[in-house]
Amino acid sequence: MTKERLYLFDTTLRDGQQTPGIDFSTEEKQQIAQWLDEFGIDYVEGGYPGANPTDTAFFAKRQTNRARFTAFGMTKRAGISASNDPGLAGTLASKADAACLVAKSWDYHVRVALGCSLEENLANIRESVEAVAASGREAMIDCEHFFDGYKANKDYALACAKAAYEAGARWVILCDTNGGTQPIDVRAIVEHVIGEVGIPGDHLGIHAHDDTGQAVANSLAAVNAGVRQIQGTLNGVGERCGNANLVSIIPTLLLKESFAERFETGVSPEKLKGLARLSRMFDDLLNRMPDPQAPYVGASAFATKAGIHASALLKEPETYEHVAPESVGNARRVMVSDQGGKSNFIDGLSRRGIAVRKDDPRLDTLIALVKEREAQGYAYEDADASFEMLARRHLGTVPTFFNVTSYRCVVERRINAVGQKIDMSEAVVKVEIDGEEKMSVAEGKGPVNALDIALRKDLGKYQGLIDDIELVDYKVRILNGGTEAITRVMIETRDGQGRHWTTIGVSDNVIDASFEAMMDSIVYCLFERLEAQKAA
Amino acid sequence: MTKERLYLFDTTLRDGQQTPGIDFSTEEKQQIAQWLDEFGIDYVEGGYPGANPTDTAFFAKRQTNRARFTAFGMTKRAGISASNDPGLAGTLASKADAACLVAKSWDYHVRVALGCSLEENLANIRESVEAVAASGREAMIDCEHFFDGYKANKDYALACAKAAYEAGARWVILCDTNGGTQPIDVRAIVEHVIGEVGIPGDHLGIHAHDDTGQAVANSLAAVNAGVRQIQGTLNGVGERCGNANLVSIIPTLLLKESFAERFETGVSPEKLKGLARLSRMFDDLLNRMPDPQAPYVGASAFATKAGIHASALLKEPETYEHVAPESVGNARRVMVSDQGGKSNFIDGLSRRGIAVRKDDPRLDTLIALVKEREAQGYAYEDADASFEMLARRHLGTVPTFFNVTSYRCVVERRINAVGQKIDMSEAVVKVEIDGEEKMSVAEGKGPVNALDIALRKDLGKYQGLIDDIELVDYKVRILNGGTEAITRVMIETRDGQGRHWTTIGVSDNVIDASFEAMMDSIVYCLFERLEAQKAA
Repeated sequence: MTKERLYLFDTTLRDGQQTPGIDFSTEEKQQIAQWLDEFGIDYVEGGYPGANPTDTAFFAKRQTNRARFTAFGMTKRAGISASNDPGLAGTLASKADAACLVAKSWDYHVRVALGCSLEENLANIRESVEAVAASGREAMIDCEHFFDGYKANKDYALACAKAAYEAGARWVILCDTNGGTQPIDVRAIVEHVIGEVGIPGDHLGIHAHDDTGQAVANSLAAVNAGVRQIQGTLNGVGERCGNANLVSIIPTLLLKESFAERFETGVSPEKLKGLARLSRMFDDLLNRMPDPQAPYVGASAFATKAGIHASALLKEPETYEHVAPESVGNARRVMVSDQGGKSNFIDGLSRRGIAVRKDDPRLDTLIALVKEREAQGYAYEDADASFEMLARRHLGTVPTFFNVTSYRCVVERRINAVGQKIDMSEAVVKVEIDGEEKMSVAEGKGPVNALDIALRKDLGKYQGLIDDIELVDYKVRILNGGTEAITRVMIETRDGQGRHWTTIGVSDNVIDASFEAMMDSIVYCLFERLEAQKAA
Repeated sequence: MTKERLYLFDTTLRDGQQTPGIDFSTEEKQQIAQWLDEFGIDYVEGGYPGANPTDTAFFAKRQTNRARFTAFGMTKRAGISASNDPGLAGTLASKADAACLVAKSWDYHVRVALGCSLEENLANIRESVEAVAASGREAMIDCEHFFDGYKANKDYALACAKAAYEAGARWVILCDTNGGTQPIDVRAIVEHVIGEVGIPGDHLGIHAHDDTGQAVANSLAAVNAGVRQIQGTLNGVGERCGNANLVSIIPTLLLKESFAERFETGVSPEKLKGLARLSRMFDDLLNRMPDPQAPYVGASAFATKAGIHASALLKEPETYEHVAPESVGNARRVMVSDQGGKSNFIDGLSRRGIAVRKDDPRLDTLIALVKEREAQGYAYEDADASFEMLARRHLGTVPTFFNVTSYRCVVERRINAVGQKIDMSEAVVKVEIDGEEKMSVAEGKGPVNALDIALRKDLGKYQGLIDDIELVDYKVRILNGGTEAITRVMIETRDGQGRHWTTIGVSDNVIDASFEAMMDSIVYCLFERLEAQKAA
């Protein structure tokens, strides 16, 4: 059976730019367009040439190879010809292959926001489509507020869509601009547009927003009703609650039978394996923390806490996972925690290269120790390196590289002789290595930073092994109310090769908890590197 | 027309606990149960009594007033009677009003994970429901893997649901345990369960997971197909990609006509106005950054950037917003206009009893100052007392009660003469009051606690005004990665009459940030009490 083609339209660079806090530079737009192009997206909407200098510069050359490079624009205003309309001029002067013009399709907005007659708006749609087509570009119309407009004045909304189609638009996109439409209504309205109005589904697109948390469902409901173009963004960025998230939609289209058996897209199964990486690179570019719970690509998307599912999962993963994590470039995680069973525990250890027999009595005491420490506030599931160190220490395989015999942090604020406020944070650390005592002092921005610097300043013969590590994330969580509460510190460390590991410390004293996590991180690094040297 | 009742079942404390990184203490569970109960949730599933000490302790007393306090459990095993089954014992010994027992309904899992016959599993379901009912509790069955089971062996999945219903279960919950089912299939399968099998919709529930980003849509599709109980969690926490987000579902049920005209829930429109606050309090308790793009409740959910929509939005908001932001306790944000900002700002001040004229030039500089400080990391929305102090100081109405001329914190760890590890945290504070200098010293559990004690030890003539205040919550958030990152500290203070206020400090030094928040709290208290004395 031949499959029908579904077209993917990415508007990260245009509607995604409406996200509070997002403002792409031209270079960032080039990078993102390249990723989308290589991934197999059909249309990359790059912005609105003529509206601002960044977008005009971006459209001065074609930025994609395979994908259609698409310019956003507005349908021409009333009382002016398409060729003289300043809003269309930038679009038509750009190096775009295609133009997607927004047209109002809610009668109320035509009257109030455009201030023209309903008939004039229809004429503007027709003439704008014709002008784009005459310029040799593919023409598309975004019917703004289509679903709300349909509810308010069905005939007029449909007339707008029909005008665009009959004037030659390759695609007429039905937009849920305010994002409040329910999937059941999307489906019924799209079916009406196809069945009664006669616009074929392979000329219709859907543009959904996530204001009720259903942008993905609305997009897929529209596909089930017949549309063949889906507009969305990377990681669901966009105005308000965001646009439909293509990173969630694409794997469903490729991996879920009911879609995969009917449709094909420009994204191959092989390219799909790059999805998790694409999502993460985009977050990196935005300097955002990735959402661990993101469908398909989140760090937790295939994670299971030890519990009722974990032991069975390990036996037969395909009956506990809706898709294979590798198909989207993600991985399975079974985490150690509170309710962990013995077999999970052994599994967790063996994945870290720690072999222990099921009847080894140290295994039971280690499990008891982990439970006891988790009751105190430790959370080993997110602190793999500390878990490994705890296990290895308990099993007696970690040498004492060095001892910190004492440390002291001083934080001081005072007014100096000329009346300036002086803040000072200083740390002193005494370390004993092979019977020799070393003392280091450092200043820092705050006591934790000072302690971190002092601790890693001189570890004697080990110094060369830790010179390239740096602390890249530091999280503090208070486990009960009040300043006397227990503090949990998690530290993420990175080395020169880009490896990351996380360690944890718990104490009623934030400095102590930080110190513990730092020590685990350094000892973990030394242990791993010395083992690697031995193996080499 | 009488409306049908929809029942809301919250599993934040049970399935939500499966979220990587979430481990509630008994106190946290109590707090959350109270919020849910007051908000109008029908069933609060508190955990699995008997499975771990936290849950057993939590179920030692009834934790809700209005809501049914619900225990999770497992259907009994084969070859043992319900009264002797250890997995059921904890549930039946608890103070729960209702019990929700999980039962496998995918034939494959019955054979492999339970290792019993298909018929034995059906008998286990029946006998377990009967045992719960006989204990005087409401019985519910979670049909685990129901949708996947239905696809694999339709008759058996249906037999499980039917066995539960016929044995007297008040609710039979259809679970999409692996989270991969599509809304169109949820709808068709639920319709089949109701129409062909004959279990009435008002005895059916839906339990959806977000693995394809459609947990909300799946839940609502099930409601449209006839189920009348919805299971979900606060902010969509839960295993892997999370459970259905009740914070997104509830406003859709109450505000979207197609649901609101047919259904009523235990949440009143008045309670719904507390939704944004509930969502934020839950994130605060988890020490998570709220998702600005969260449907209905996110900080950006009603935000518009300067662009094609912003100016029209201000004229006629209801045609650009799918619901009114106030209906869920959120607010509109238009991110350019200082016009809209200014009147909101004056509004906020006057609610705090601070009168300022619209053309007062200090108002513009105050707005600029707040913006600048929010860019640095201050979050005044959740720190009312600090906002009030900032505004009053800028408008020149806060006297300088006292000056802290210097402070010093020392944290030390060393080994004493008899080989014991000694941890010491000490703070010294110098305060000037009416030209007289006072010096206080205190030890504490950690530097912040020591500083708090020293600072409030002797404030001279003001001491009597602050003797009854205590620090009840202390939260630290790191705004960027690394130990050199900016630290935001929020402190909640309570006085003898039970009044609470929150203050904030931001610095690259955790001690400094804490000091700033403590100072704001003390000055706020002095100011309010001295004003009250003047007024009296």
